[in-house]
Amino acid sequence: MKINQFAHAPAAFETKLEELSKLRFIKADAQQEDLNLLWKNLLLKCFPQAKCLAQKHEKLASLAATKTESVPEFIEKKTVNLTVFYAVAMQLLQFEPDTEFDIDNPLKSMDELGVFHADKLEDSTDLISAFYDLLATHGKNGQTLLDHLGNLGFFLDFYDLPVSEKPVFFNGKAQPVFDTTKLIFEVVYVESDLDTDHDGKADLLKAEIIRPKDTEEGLKVPALYTASPYNQGTNDATVEAMTHNVNVKLTRKTPDSLTYDEIKYTAKPKTEIKKQTVNGTVKSANETFPREFSYTLNDYMLARGFAAVYAAGIGTMDSDGFRTCGSKEETESTTAIIEWLAGNRKAFIDKTSGIEIKAWWCNKHVAMTGKSYLGTLATAAATTGVEGLSTIISEAAISNWYDYYRDGGLVVAPDGFPGEDADVLAEDCFSRRKQSGDFLHVKKDWENHLAKITRGQDRTTGSYNTFWDARNYLKDVQNIKCDVVMVHGLNDWNVKPRNVYNLYNALQKLPVVSKLVLHQGQHIYVNNFQSLDFTDMMNLWLSHKLYGLENGAEKLLPNVLVQDNVKESTWHAKDSWIDEDADEVVLKATPCGKLKPLSAEKCSADGHDGNCHAKELQFKDSLDQKDFEAYVSDIAKWKHDLASENTPLDSNRIVWKSTAFDKDIVLEGAPKVSLRVKSSRDYGMLSFMLIDYGTDKRLGEVPTTLARKAIDCGFHWRTDDLMEFKLAKATPFKMITKGHLNLQNRTNLWHADDLSADEYVEIDVVLQPMLHRIKAGHQLGLIVYSTDMGMTVRGNEDIRYTLDGTKTRLTINVKNLN
Amino acid sequence: MKINQFAHAPAAFETKLEELSKLRFIKADAQQEDLNLLWKNLLLKCFPQAKCLAQKHEKLASLAATKTESVPEFIEKKTVNLTVFYAVAMQLLQFEPDTEFDIDNPLKSMDELGVFHADKLEDSTDLISAFYDLLATHGKNGQTLLDHLGNLGFFLDFYDLPVSEKPVFFNGKAQPVFDTTKLIFEVVYVESDLDTDHDGKADLLKAEIIRPKDTEEGLKVPALYTASPYNQGTNDATVEAMTHNVNVKLTRKTPDSLTYDEIKYTAKPKTEIKKQTVNGTVKSANETFPREFSYTLNDYMLARGFAAVYAAGIGTMDSDGFRTCGSKEETESTTAIIEWLAGNRKAFIDKTSGIEIKAWWCNKHVAMTGKSYLGTLATAAATTGVEGLSTIISEAAISNWYDYYRDGGLVVAPDGFPGEDADVLAEDCFSRRKQSGDFLHVKKDWENHLAKITRGQDRTTGSYNTFWDARNYLKDVQNIKCDVVMVHGLNDWNVKPRNVYNLYNALQKLPVVSKLVLHQGQHIYVNNFQSLDFTDMMNLWLSHKLYGLENGAEKLLPNVLVQDNVKESTWHAKDSWIDEDADEVVLKATPCGKLKPLSAEKCSADGHDGNCHAKELQFKDSLDQKDFEAYVSDIAKWKHDLASENTPLDSNRIVWKSTAFDKDIVLEGAPKVSLRVKSSRDYGMLSFMLIDYGTDKRLGEVPTTLARKAIDCGFHWRTDDLMEFKLAKATPFKMITKGHLNLQNRTNLWHADDLSADEYVEIDVVLQPMLHRIKAGHQLGLIVYSTDMGMTVRGNEDIRYTLDGTKTRLTINVKNLN
Repeated sequence: MKINQFAHAPAAFETKLEELSKLRFIKADAQQEDLNLLWKNLLLKCFPQAKCLAQKHEKLASLAATKTESVPEFIEKKTVNLTVFYAVAMQLLQFEPDTEFDIDNPLKSMDELGVFHADKLEDSTDLISAFYDLLATHGKNGQTLLDHLGNLGFFLDFYDLPVSEKPVFFNGKAQPVFDTTKLIFEVVYVESDLDTDHDGKADLLKAEIIRPKDTEEGLKVPALYTASPYNQGTNDATVEAMTHNVNVKLTRKTPDSLTYDEIKYTAKPKTEIKKQTVNGTVKSANETFPREFSYTLNDYMLARGFAAVYAAGIGTMDSDGFRTCGSKEETESTTAIIEWLAGNRKAFIDKTSGIEIKAWWCNKHVAMTGKSYLGTLATAAATTGVEGLSTIISEAAISNWYDYYRDGGLVVAPDGFPGEDADVLAEDCFSRRKQSGDFLHVKKDWENHLAKITRGQDRTTGSYNTFWDARNYLKDVQNIKCDVVMVHGLNDWNVKPRNVYNLYNALQKLPVVSKLVLHQGQHIYVNNFQSLDFTDMMNLWLSHKLYGLENGAEKLLPNVLVQDNVKESTWHAKDSWIDEDADEVVLKATPCGKLKPLSAEKCSADGHDGNCHAKELQFKDSLDQKDFEAYVSDIAKWKHDLASENTPLDSNRIVWKSTAFDKDIVLEGAPKVSLRVKSSRDYGMLSFMLIDYGTDKRLGEVPTTLARKAIDCGFHWRTDDLMEFKLAKATPFKMITKGHLNLQNRTNLWHADDLSADEYVEIDVVLQPMLHRIKAGHQLGLIVYSTDMGMTVRGNEDIRYTLDGTKTRLTINVKNLN
Repeated sequence: MKINQFAHAPAAFETKLEELSKLRFIKADAQQEDLNLLWKNLLLKCFPQAKCLAQKHEKLASLAATKTESVPEFIEKKTVNLTVFYAVAMQLLQFEPDTEFDIDNPLKSMDELGVFHADKLEDSTDLISAFYDLLATHGKNGQTLLDHLGNLGFFLDFYDLPVSEKPVFFNGKAQPVFDTTKLIFEVVYVESDLDTDHDGKADLLKAEIIRPKDTEEGLKVPALYTASPYNQGTNDATVEAMTHNVNVKLTRKTPDSLTYDEIKYTAKPKTEIKKQTVNGTVKSANETFPREFSYTLNDYMLARGFAAVYAAGIGTMDSDGFRTCGSKEETESTTAIIEWLAGNRKAFIDKTSGIEIKAWWCNKHVAMTGKSYLGTLATAAATTGVEGLSTIISEAAISNWYDYYRDGGLVVAPDGFPGEDADVLAEDCFSRRKQSGDFLHVKKDWENHLAKITRGQDRTTGSYNTFWDARNYLKDVQNIKCDVVMVHGLNDWNVKPRNVYNLYNALQKLPVVSKLVLHQGQHIYVNNFQSLDFTDMMNLWLSHKLYGLENGAEKLLPNVLVQDNVKESTWHAKDSWIDEDADEVVLKATPCGKLKPLSAEKCSADGHDGNCHAKELQFKDSLDQKDFEAYVSDIAKWKHDLASENTPLDSNRIVWKSTAFDKDIVLEGAPKVSLRVKSSRDYGMLSFMLIDYGTDKRLGEVPTTLARKAIDCGFHWRTDDLMEFKLAKATPFKMITKGHLNLQNRTNLWHADDLSADEYVEIDVVLQPMLHRIKAGHQLGLIVYSTDMGMTVRGNEDIRYTLDGTKTRLTINVKNLN
């Protein structure tokens, strides 16, 4: 267990005094108080669940000051000092003496755990200062002490503060002074400028809003807006039937001379769309909604003075229009909600009455949140520069749909979803289908529309075309005006890391602030981790961006924060993805299976005579039908066997390994593989993996649930599970990154190169980016193969590939650690 | 997908009219209304999320009446009939046309899915009747339509009903007319007659109460009480260190002549304990609490007029006393809360003031709920006959702690927890340790107390002794006065099925009503399953038992309800665990590895000459150290290999198999194995498994999450995930049941028989009970082995066992299915 806090804001003593007294922890004369009395009174404040002083005293006696004395016993005879203060503080943070910290020497334990502490406690000033910092310190349950007190009811007395005194901030972060039992749930219908279902009427878009009751008293609050195409339901049974068969052969592309300009997407001019006549305006909506499909970060902020807004967009249940899977129309359907929140677009209380409703309760500052498609739409919205969007927290987001469903001129599925494609996802999210009485009128149009998407995505060639160019948000990055937080899993093979890497790199060239969090998970949220104060970081960020609080968020949060892949619960702050002092290293992959520095000209060091026998390296793509089928039905086994030896895949790939490293190194950024290859056919594809070889305990693939429902988002409000990546059983290796290339896309992704059977061609392929520490004693491996059972088509064809054994190179950025 | 409803109560038409009008679905003259108008008005009631009529009409148009017409379009031209009524009904139940039902023939789909429907709809009476039943019908999301409407806000208008009109029942079940945003959360301290920490003062027990606001207006509500020793936290780090080493040899027991009377537990006479002086009485508690460790069944009922009470008992955080792991004191600490709820015991607002607080809001009817230790304490409480306890819903409960931590004179751990024992669990739940300032005063006493438990449990012999006799609730079953619901997983190898089997059998002899639900899960709750209306069943049961509603619950709920292990989502109602028409069948296990009917005297049918060569069957217990360690670290692999061939375990067990059955059979009750065996040492143990052999898809070991947070416990209230067992990948076999015996406990569990090396003894061993269907084409297998890697000690000793090849018999109850 280790605690990493980045949103613990240093504060001047005057600020501490002021904020503590605002929260009624201390009175004006606190500095004059007797040290023990001050301490006792502060501790008594830590039992808000007890309503009378006698009972608070009972609770106080449950805290140990030393191995032999409870706090009341200690206070009777001795005076609080640094050690005793933190011995008690650790208990308040829910750490347990003996097993989790040493009560005789809490500071040592705190240092080991990474828990903040002061170094001096001699007078009331020190005590007040230390107590302030303690309130902002993370405990064992993934929250600050103040959050914990809030969960016990501390802020109940603040619910009734006049709105002029709300929200309440402490240590730069908004506090739960909003009564979540009185939240207002309402639905509005935002009128877009779209007509994606071509019925001649502007598509109306349903938005679900949750806002604090205080808005009714005049408080203007910002909105956390999550655009989730899934949140009105999905058509799982329908899409199961339309998922594409991936057990098909790779198709040779007819060579062409296409240029980018020929496939470039250009928006069609807009046609006039009929809008509703306004028949009046009201302040209250006419519709409520049951439990929404929420994000717990939004839930947390709801208790702290932020509204939450959920909208699913065109073609979802209760909205008009059709899904388009990532096109400009979907972006526009996303920004329409922001425009309404910012006062620049109309919404109605229903779909027919023409009664308008404004977002009169909103302070016109909006942040977008959410993961995957949700984060993707946040990114998409940001690239429009829409007014009112102050920031996005874009998690595991697609930045270019080609990088989601395609790679290197190939159809490459997100891992775990073979056969999925843009059309499948469009259908899956087309929850308007569930309104059967409405759907029956648009069924035909929808089928035609969907067929167009199927044609546009072009599974035959896998090339980058106009369809994909229309779905490439990177083209519009320069329009981004808001500051951006990105979160991505370095093991996310659903939305592959290139998506965030390209966005991150593009943002570095713009005059906006960007922050990047890279974790060791797959396709997950990280706001419920024990080791990281992600929620606090976002609270700090959102309090600054949406309420304009000057809390130093931009400086406090690291530019790049990366979770260590070797040690549990360890996060590193960095300036950039690739460190300035990283070296670009070129390794040659020798015919005898070694990865060596370019300068090591001969193989003799490894017992060879310097003239390796095999100047050509061959591998095949086909498998016995039985092995093939076994791998199709067990992709995990295929992944394992590919990097192992003595398996049915031995002749289906070439493996190179470095010698064991004598110290830890970190591989950064996107590696490049260059080689000369020939295919036995006039078409072909190569896949690549970098592997960390070395039997070792590694972080689990999925985080462990430390405690179910252990995180309260507020007092008697929603909960989250407390999670953490733990070291799992030892494994012999781990895949670091991968890449794919169609041999007919050597030049670029839109134009098909020629290829002849049995003729060498040279290729350069950039793999997915990485940030991976290889431990001393481990080896780096490179694997070249063809069919990727989990991602590419699987033709099980008799194709052989031959590499020029002397020409394979791997270029990587390496940071040597001391 | 299949829906199984047992709590759908048949109702007279007059009742239907009355209840529908009470819920404001219809007016007095409904029967006179035009059929279409009546239908439309009923449908408009199904959109409580829309607050005005115009908007309800918009929603109505989202329903399809036929393949080509929405409901409004249909109504304009045609009149509702049976088909159209159910085509729309199925949409209200959230089934989707095309993929989930045939809109042209909904009745056929409903029959296939098991969804209730009427067979005639010709006039308003039929329509009203059908609509009533529809409201009580389960949909795709595991809830009734009326629950679904409640989740959309239907009952908001009923929150303000005068308490004289609350609770509201419909179809025999309580409805969510209680405002969960106004629940009262309070803590009281119940004064017990115990002094388990020997401080001379009565142990005070913390209870957390959640009750509807309506109680403040005079409503008396029953209480659902969950006694969970875990709910104040557990000492996981502490117990990790004290978990017992199971890689130890089996110990020979010194033969003795102990009788039961010599080990029988007798309670010590009670000594006087100092009670608090009452210094006054108040109506409101002084303490609240954050998010409790809740059971979603309680959450569901909270919205329906039942209070929830959680208490952890002696030795848990904020309570006094010590944990005893299942002793009489723990039972008494459990019933103390009930006595307070029933008005027969004192509670205080804190631990020192002497200010009393009564459960004035309680109607003195209490039900206990919860799974595992929670269900165990419910069973324990029931065996006291305590006044006020009207029923228990005891899930996956221990009925005898010997059957939890021991078996057949052996230390046998709950599966997945090797090395756990009563002392470990006592320490784990001793959350009083977390009150460090209090704990430091009782540390020594606690350590002495714990050492006594360790001695008492006696891991050396594994015999039944006074310690275990004190923890055998079955001895007191005759005291049970309340009706009992039992729920248990047929694959629960944590709390093994014998626990529920023995309780079930004992209850059949008592004048109480008992109901048994046997599911195919392991150690899980089943209140969130799509296929079963368990929550409705419990609502029906609790409305009857705690509010006295005459709803036919006792007749409607089957005596035994068992989930099919072959088909998905299929539940069978039965009269008893073992069907009356089941046959007791004796199979002989032949020297050549066959399981045959006793009458088949010779093996010749299988190609043998009738005189099998091997009259003795030998197997060893030891393994190569490497194999041993591999199995220790991968119990799943051991389980797999034991029943497979060509594994390191080939010589470590004897396997017999029946011929393939030509039709399905069901094995019922507890099988018995009889055999003659000799050990190569003067001690030894045997383990047994019955196996269902036959490569087939079987239900997954754990249920699949169909939809996260899809079940609302009420409007904007807590949620649960929707779960179901789905058929998983084909497996070659499945374990049905198992058993264990120490060869020195041939006579009984408390007395140690003598055993000489290499001398035959005869044994009878009753395995854990089962209720398992073997499909036609499958074979029944019996395996005899010694060390159970997951449960027994693992000495990896050089012991060989020899069976008399002609004397092994298996006795089972078999029901032949037609």
